[in-house]
Amino acid sequence: MKYGYGVDLGGTTVKMGLFQEDGRLLDKWEIDTDISAGGVNIPADIGHSVLADMKKHSFLKEDYLGIGIGIPGQLWPDGTANAINLGWDHLPLISSLESATGLKTVGDNDANMAAMGEYWQGVGKGFASLVLVTLGTGVGGGIILNGRCLQGAHRAGGEIGHIPVEPGETLVCGCGGHGCLEQYASATGCARIAMDMLSADSEPSTLRSVRKVDARAVWDAVKAGDATAMRIADRFCGYLARGLAVVACTVDPDIIVLGGGVSRAGEPLLTRVREQYARVAFPACRGTPIVLASLGNDAGMYGAMATLLNA
Amino acid sequence: MKYGYGVDLGGTTVKMGLFQEDGRLLDKWEIDTDISAGGVNIPADIGHSVLADMKKHSFLKEDYLGIGIGIPGQLWPDGTANAINLGWDHLPLISSLESATGLKTVGDNDANMAAMGEYWQGVGKGFASLVLVTLGTGVGGGIILNGRCLQGAHRAGGEIGHIPVEPGETLVCGCGGHGCLEQYASATGCARIAMDMLSADSEPSTLRSVRKVDARAVWDAVKAGDATAMRIADRFCGYLARGLAVVACTVDPDIIVLGGGVSRAGEPLLTRVREQYARVAFPACRGTPIVLASLGNDAGMYGAMATLLNA
Repeated sequence: MKYGYGVDLGGTTVKMGLFQEDGRLLDKWEIDTDISAGGVNIPADIGHSVLADMKKHSFLKEDYLGIGIGIPGQLWPDGTANAINLGWDHLPLISSLESATGLKTVGDNDANMAAMGEYWQGVGKGFASLVLVTLGTGVGGGIILNGRCLQGAHRAGGEIGHIPVEPGETLVCGCGGHGCLEQYASATGCARIAMDMLSADSEPSTLRSVRKVDARAVWDAVKAGDATAMRIADRFCGYLARGLAVVACTVDPDIIVLGGGVSRAGEPLLTRVREQYARVAFPACRGTPIVLASLGNDAGMYGAMATLLNA
Repeated sequence: MKYGYGVDLGGTTVKMGLFQEDGRLLDKWEIDTDISAGGVNIPADIGHSVLADMKKHSFLKEDYLGIGIGIPGQLWPDGTANAINLGWDHLPLISSLESATGLKTVGDNDANMAAMGEYWQGVGKGFASLVLVTLGTGVGGGIILNGRCLQGAHRAGGEIGHIPVEPGETLVCGCGGHGCLEQYASATGCARIAMDMLSADSEPSTLRSVRKVDARAVWDAVKAGDATAMRIADRFCGYLARGLAVVACTVDPDIIVLGGGVSRAGEPLLTRVREQYARVAFPACRGTPIVLASLGNDAGMYGAMATLLNA
């Protein structure tokens, strides 16, 4: 049996896991992400934590396959990384980790890692291909085909949040475009749709007495049976379904997985997305399963280990 | 040196080519497509033509890699094929060709074959990935990643014609959907946009004296400097650019290739598509080259041979 470290680097904490090559998670822990001084201490902090864990076990050095790491940004082919939230601009991540630990290190961005994790040991296990759409503050995505992540020529493979879905939009997306999926199908987009629809009429709604109408408030109101919240949810899911229909007639995956904070809405979200997807998707793909992610916050760690196994 | 046959089966003619494994086309010819009796004679006709060609050469049987064939429909994993225009419903294509010729036979649909052809020996040669969009009566597509065609879980990979681009559309697409790219960026779509715009106002245009306003008439008028035709072309290319932007932020290919009858419009089409694509594409992908296909009607034969080499 071989072992490896799956690392999910976030803006606040670093999630770390010791895995067996068969997918068993032996141990997991977290350390703080030190974003001071442009995040330069992060590789050494991760390296120390890995070395400390290695001392706890009696495995031989050659029993370790290495380290896989997911980062909130871009990893370039030369092993340097950019991550705005960490202050990284071409930080030599891979070489720093390798010299700190003596272990081979591979990496990718966190959305791709989460997709790899669900594919390897999550809800996508056993399928040949998978698309993960993460519904968080923004909308991220990862496309896995036959066990490999579709990176794209400019590392934009699976940038599902920037599928144009609303040609008439006047508001600008973070990417500079107009009418991107992320402008609607994210937590931010959900709140905006809610504010738009609440101000468009004066129908009674429990949402009118909520101090801050965010995505969670909307989905809580949906579950409580609020009619306005349900119309907001229908519109949110209509955009999401259109984005998934695009994914279906380009990549045509075996399974579509929804993750991220908004996916915690669960059944009321799934039911609506599935129903609207079946109406707009290309006929051959109408039966594509749409399911919730199953690994939660551990998906990134699992995907980092899976990427290490692939390397 | 090994040899193989690349066959492109169309509704009127069958294009056949004898290739060297290095991509050299030694000979090409055509036979008629016999669609009588539900197209049941087609495999035998192709088989006879292959056998007749083999007799002309002194190659050994083991010098032949086999036959690759592109069809205007679906080839199923069991080797049977459906093609509405030929009358095929689960016709045993692969086994018929193999028993008629004694040669290994592989196949795929014609849009995927054309993409493989451009990737192997056409304008995509040397790129790691390619998307071909064929602008004909409809809009077809093929996605090639690292030398392999993205088939998809339901053989809908690269069904670019059915990317939803116009949520407000009331007219129904051939697939049953509304607002698919094919409804605008095809020859049929071009003619419809022209009729819509010509009837919307009474601006003078040379197109008003054309007996049949089809895609060719529109692009001829664009080249002659007709202002209305240019506005029609801008709208046509706006839809196409939006579809290509979708392709860029999902698959992110190294190069985008335009083929099919409408692509013969050439520079006036390319210039407009590139300009509008650069405005709507995800920033990282704005520089993706958009070029015209280079193999013309031979692309399918080349792709069939490339698919044979991959098998």
